[in-house]
Amino acid sequence: MSETARLIGLDWGSSSLRATLISAQGHVLSSRQSAQGASTLAGGPAAFCAALDALIADWMTAHPALPMLACGMVGSQHGWREAPYVPCPCDPAALAAQMVAVEIGSGRRLLIVPGLVYQPEGLPPDVMRGEETQLIGALDPDLAEACMILPGTHAKWVALRESGVHGFATQMSGELFALLRQHSVLGRLMPTEAGLPDRAGFAEGVRAARDHGELGLAHQLFAVRTLGLLQRLPASGLADYLSGLLIGHELRAGLAWRARAGLAAAPLVLVGEPALCQRYEWALQDFDQALDAALGNTAAAGLWRLALAAGLV
Amino acid sequence: MSETARLIGLDWGSSSLRATLISAQGHVLSSRQSAQGASTLAGGPAAFCAALDALIADWMTAHPALPMLACGMVGSQHGWREAPYVPCPCDPAALAAQMVAVEIGSGRRLLIVPGLVYQPEGLPPDVMRGEETQLIGALDPDLAEACMILPGTHAKWVALRESGVHGFATQMSGELFALLRQHSVLGRLMPTEAGLPDRAGFAEGVRAARDHGELGLAHQLFAVRTLGLLQRLPASGLADYLSGLLIGHELRAGLAWRARAGLAAAPLVLVGEPALCQRYEWALQDFDQALDAALGNTAAAGLWRLALAAGLV
Repeated sequence: MSETARLIGLDWGSSSLRATLISAQGHVLSSRQSAQGASTLAGGPAAFCAALDALIADWMTAHPALPMLACGMVGSQHGWREAPYVPCPCDPAALAAQMVAVEIGSGRRLLIVPGLVYQPEGLPPDVMRGEETQLIGALDPDLAEACMILPGTHAKWVALRESGVHGFATQMSGELFALLRQHSVLGRLMPTEAGLPDRAGFAEGVRAARDHGELGLAHQLFAVRTLGLLQRLPASGLADYLSGLLIGHELRAGLAWRARAGLAAAPLVLVGEPALCQRYEWALQDFDQALDAALGNTAAAGLWRLALAAGLV
Repeated sequence: MSETARLIGLDWGSSSLRATLISAQGHVLSSRQSAQGASTLAGGPAAFCAALDALIADWMTAHPALPMLACGMVGSQHGWREAPYVPCPCDPAALAAQMVAVEIGSGRRLLIVPGLVYQPEGLPPDVMRGEETQLIGALDPDLAEACMILPGTHAKWVALRESGVHGFATQMSGELFALLRQHSVLGRLMPTEAGLPDRAGFAEGVRAARDHGELGLAHQLFAVRTLGLLQRLPASGLADYLSGLLIGHELRAGLAWRARAGLAAAPLVLVGEPALCQRYEWALQDFDQALDAALGNTAAAGLWRLALAAGLV
């Protein structure tokens, strides 16, 4: 390890805790992960402190003066301490100004990044928590504006302008997929074990949404059952057809949202887990949309930039 | 009981069994219900026979020669015996011709009404099982054509023409509501006990779908969370907002489907459980759509007409 550690960064979501040791150049020197997400921890501050100790007690001992910064659901109402939602448009300085602190013993504290709220005129508000840090990590000085897509349980479509988050829209496609697969009539004909992705089944779902989406998602979903029941699709392809339908409907709505945000010609950038981004890339091709970049997890880079903006490093 | 019983009719769905004793005039003389739906019965024919005995052994003893006719999931792959799906367009005679029989002991048999399959050009097939009998029961000689809506777990929008079922489209709004309320992040802020319907919350959801549905169902659903989180709607109104969003999206898609089916000017008729039909009636008002009739459960009337068509009575 030739570079010196300068920051302990925590990407602390609902279902997992990922810790990174970050160098003065903003590089990830080391990272670790546990399943002690914020929603798994009952018992208040002590439970959160114990989860930190279980994962990185040695880092904290070896680097007693290193600043610590966390993002994600750790800052929610049911997290360690609630951090506010900062309104859009918003840049790193605005996020840095509203961090909240918790004591973690021995006089040390952990700062928590706030979330974002977007209140479009005449529409319900939208919120994010955790993704704001990934977005800051994905900012590129060469991109004056861009439309970013962060796939996931609650996917985010984001309008970036002048190095800040201008607005965003959540799409619950990921949660709908999990719900429908596990708990609905649509999952009954699917094999229990997920196999390799069935790209043909996925493409058929995407194209059904693209070509006939006006029939409604709640109607088109039922085809997952009928195509299986009448053996028009193999059981092994039904989950991918469902995934394609949901992502296809997300693209219909998301690309229209992007156009209304005035970003129809702006670069389109995917940020997130590669296998999931790959599905979006396939679906975007079926919608004749060029993708400008696909980035992996940018949370550590975002935590570093926010630590800089807050004067922590 | 001045009229003589002529038919034992069974509306045997996934989760319930409803038996009716029907007179020579097609009137319901008596009815009973149990929770022994087809999906609750494992163990093959013996389990189905036992469920019948438990509910109506006395009727079967008192009327040993009465014909017995059942509709619903009892005729599915996982029911008592699989009855075919009859293709649309379809009238009572076509359904009567494809009934299947099961032996129930003492030389007696029960006939099961087939389901319907609709295969629109270039689109996935759609199916129903049980609703075909309600539709036959709702047929009105004065209605040459109509668009029928049967709300429920899997709502059906049906084009009726010349006393037959011309085509239909399933909308999974009811199942989505149950899934999202019970298993998703959206249910977390809702009170455990369902209170009285919050008509204002319901209307707000319907209008959000009507005015901004192009934002996508998977996006608009997230407002159930944000409106609760940011206290823009009371917790007691969130389930009704969700219900309104789902029914509003169903109406957007369903009314467009009705227009494409050439029935934009044809009567609109609701068939089903009154409290649920009431919601559709409210939502239709917000879509400026006149409702021509709202019927209750017409399964018994349909079983009687199908028994006539099959020469059973």
